[in-house]
Amino acid sequence: MNNVIKLLNSHRSIRKFTDRSVEQTLINSCVQAGQAAATSSFIQACTVIQVNDEKKRADLSEWAGNQIYVKEAPTFLVFCADMNRHKISCDMHEAEMLSGFTEQFITATVDCALFAQNVAIAAESEGLGIVYIGGLRNKIDLVTESLALPDLVYPVFGMCLGYPDQNPEVKPRLPLDVVLKHDSYDSQTDADLIKDYDQDVQAYYRSRTGGQKEMTWSEQISGMLQKEARPHMLDFLKSRGFLKK
Amino acid sequence: MNNVIKLLNSHRSIRKFTDRSVEQTLINSCVQAGQAAATSSFIQACTVIQVNDEKKRADLSEWAGNQIYVKEAPTFLVFCADMNRHKISCDMHEAEMLSGFTEQFITATVDCALFAQNVAIAAESEGLGIVYIGGLRNKIDLVTESLALPDLVYPVFGMCLGYPDQNPEVKPRLPLDVVLKHDSYDSQTDADLIKDYDQDVQAYYRSRTGGQKEMTWSEQISGMLQKEARPHMLDFLKSRGFLKK
Repeated sequence: MNNVIKLLNSHRSIRKFTDRSVEQTLINSCVQAGQAAATSSFIQACTVIQVNDEKKRADLSEWAGNQIYVKEAPTFLVFCADMNRHKISCDMHEAEMLSGFTEQFITATVDCALFAQNVAIAAESEGLGIVYIGGLRNKIDLVTESLALPDLVYPVFGMCLGYPDQNPEVKPRLPLDVVLKHDSYDSQTDADLIKDYDQDVQAYYRSRTGGQKEMTWSEQISGMLQKEARPHMLDFLKSRGFLKK
Repeated sequence: MNNVIKLLNSHRSIRKFTDRSVEQTLINSCVQAGQAAATSSFIQACTVIQVNDEKKRADLSEWAGNQIYVKEAPTFLVFCADMNRHKISCDMHEAEMLSGFTEQFITATVDCALFAQNVAIAAESEGLGIVYIGGLRNKIDLVTESLALPDLVYPVFGMCLGYPDQNPEVKPRLPLDVVLKHDSYDSQTDADLIKDYDQDVQAYYRSRTGGQKEMTWSEQISGMLQKEARPHMLDFLKSRGFLKK
């Protein structure tokens, strides 16, 4: 296994950081590595907002469900799926822009995720730790207002970055046979493999929490799926010009 | 700049491959590196279908708009956003699954993209070249049928992998000041910066095509946005259990 693959396999979310700040040149270098990721039809649909402002950081932390590290991490980035610059390009050429297609929502969102994953890896390769913050979507309207995002831009997730002040274990993943299939989707053995895997996850939580948490993967997932998932999302995205058709 | 960041910055899509096949152990290792990516609330919502079957590869190649490398690349993977195993988990615990939320569509799609980008980087770190194939979404219904994807699973994109038999230039990206903003979204200088960047893109195409193609970025984008973008997508995704609310 080469060093890059070792680095990829060593990822775990870091939620506690030392006081050491992250040089702006390093942040820029990580963001440029993000730009180097593949982009669908060259649309380059990701914009990063680096939030240093203390009041905004405190707000974002609260809106993300009181995730204190959103406030306290040395660096916080918000990754936005962005079609505003496409609008600028259309205006530049006096072209009418057809927007609101679900396809465009997919390409912009995927672009943003590929970009962010490159940022994460670049950061980790420099000894930083990171955690993605999907919780920004709890209050996506307030986040959008706070960062003055225009129409056709939405915040997909945030990311905390800094030098790790904790060293959590890598979380066990599903067996390869569940996630890699050949020529067609065959789920016959999935339930059995998930049951085996449930034991690994239970052992992981037991060791990590000193026996306090014992949940299996399938329990965690089934519990989560009995609740509504941010039901405001579709109306909000429509109001910003996405997912209209 | 460390070697990992250099690797990230050296990405360009590879569409022509040598005959050398890719060992299954290497493919497995890349997919496992994919699994190691962050996953929203531990949902692990990505499934990869490795398509070796010649007939299926020929079909996928045609459906993707006759992209011949989809058929000819040594390895072809289809990355699917997958909530089927969440359904299995709910069934296991006799829990009613609430599905169809736009939020769930976002998390599954993002999970899939983060996973795929790790696969891409792992592959490139081993000297492979890759290209993402969004064109599968041209005929997403046929792809779904061919791969026997169940409800709550959709093919987000494909990826060709193999040893490069070409060495294209890295494509210039937007200026950092367009994609990295501070504390709020300010697009005042974007149009001017895009106009400068247009010259870089024009020079890139001129050099790459021996003067045959001279298009700027904003021209390319504005041209694309005057056409409908896969207008079948929303109805199709709804029919598979996504984006209903």
